[in-house]
Amino acid sequence: MPKVSDDRLAARRREILDGARHCFAEYGYDGATVKRIEESTGLSRGAIFHHYRDKEALFLALAHEDAERMADVAAEEGLVQVMRDMLTRPEDFDWLGTRLEIARKLRTDNSFRAEWMARSAELEQATLSRLERGRQAGRLRDDVPTEVLVKYLDLVLDGLITRLASGQPTDDLHAVLDLVEESVRARD
Amino acid sequence: MPKVSDDRLAARRREILDGARHCFAEYGYDGATVKRIEESTGLSRGAIFHHYRDKEALFLALAHEDAERMADVAAEEGLVQVMRDMLTRPEDFDWLGTRLEIARKLRTDNSFRAEWMARSAELEQATLSRLERGRQAGRLRDDVPTEVLVKYLDLVLDGLITRLASGQPTDDLHAVLDLVEESVRARD
Repeated sequence: MPKVSDDRLAARRREILDGARHCFAEYGYDGATVKRIEESTGLSRGAIFHHYRDKEALFLALAHEDAERMADVAAEEGLVQVMRDMLTRPEDFDWLGTRLEIARKLRTDNSFRAEWMARSAELEQATLSRLERGRQAGRLRDDVPTEVLVKYLDLVLDGLITRLASGQPTDDLHAVLDLVEESVRARD
Repeated sequence: MPKVSDDRLAARRREILDGARHCFAEYGYDGATVKRIEESTGLSRGAIFHHYRDKEALFLALAHEDAERMADVAAEEGLVQVMRDMLTRPEDFDWLGTRLEIARKLRTDNSFRAEWMARSAELEQATLSRLERGRQAGRLRDDVPTEVLVKYLDLVLDGLITRLASGQPTDDLHAVLDLVEESVRARD
């Protein structure tokens, strides 16, 4: 396949994902109807679902993009930095509320949960690797298993997403993240 | 008003709240239609809305009950114990998922948010009082303001609710809560 076609394909997918992200952020998972996704992408349903099987596939593709982006930051600078970025630029994460709305779907739809878990495993793995390096470098506390620290940071991340998604003030959370960061570090 | 009538009133309200709680747990906020609330309470809409103005008022009454119950535990044994109870008896908290579904409503509906915040203030106050006592007794770390510790515990609680609501395994979270508890304590 010639190069130009690949570029066009990627650009089209980019258009679809960006439009869908805005649509989910504005209307929520259930509210993001096919008609609204058409409007926010400026594309027909035929064009959209040629690239993504259905709304669920679109949603999971967005979740996968997030997980990749967050995993990059987590691998380099840690999961707490991912959370600090959320506090600094909440508008970049305004679609995260959708993640709360799918909790019921996660609980009741096994195949959806399996897909979702596969995507969040990536972030968990990046966090785990960085923590392991931190442990070897003596920056990390060594009295608690690394897996527990990963789960701890994940839990705080879920709390932060909930906080952001419900529009509660987050200015005061920087000090909380300092505490979180300190609680996984090696004691002086 | 004679005593028996008060008792009956309280019993009727109890019936309504219990039924509504099951209905929200099963169908979610939007899915808990008036028809379904009638079915799960065994009462007519007239009887139900005689006691509670509308679905929103019912939901807030349940949130208020939760906040009171959790505040009692938080005041005596701390917010971490509230979280441990959730891990031990998740079935008692199966309606909590509804709290996630209302995130959008919290973000976009100002009067609903005001009511909601008033109810969660109670739990925050109970947690704050207990932490202040802990600080005076020297059990609490004194290098971080108590308000930051409250916000920290609140954030972890939100994370835990999200985890429970999406049906993810929570067996491994006891060790995480040990870490959380330890991170607010005075160092030996």
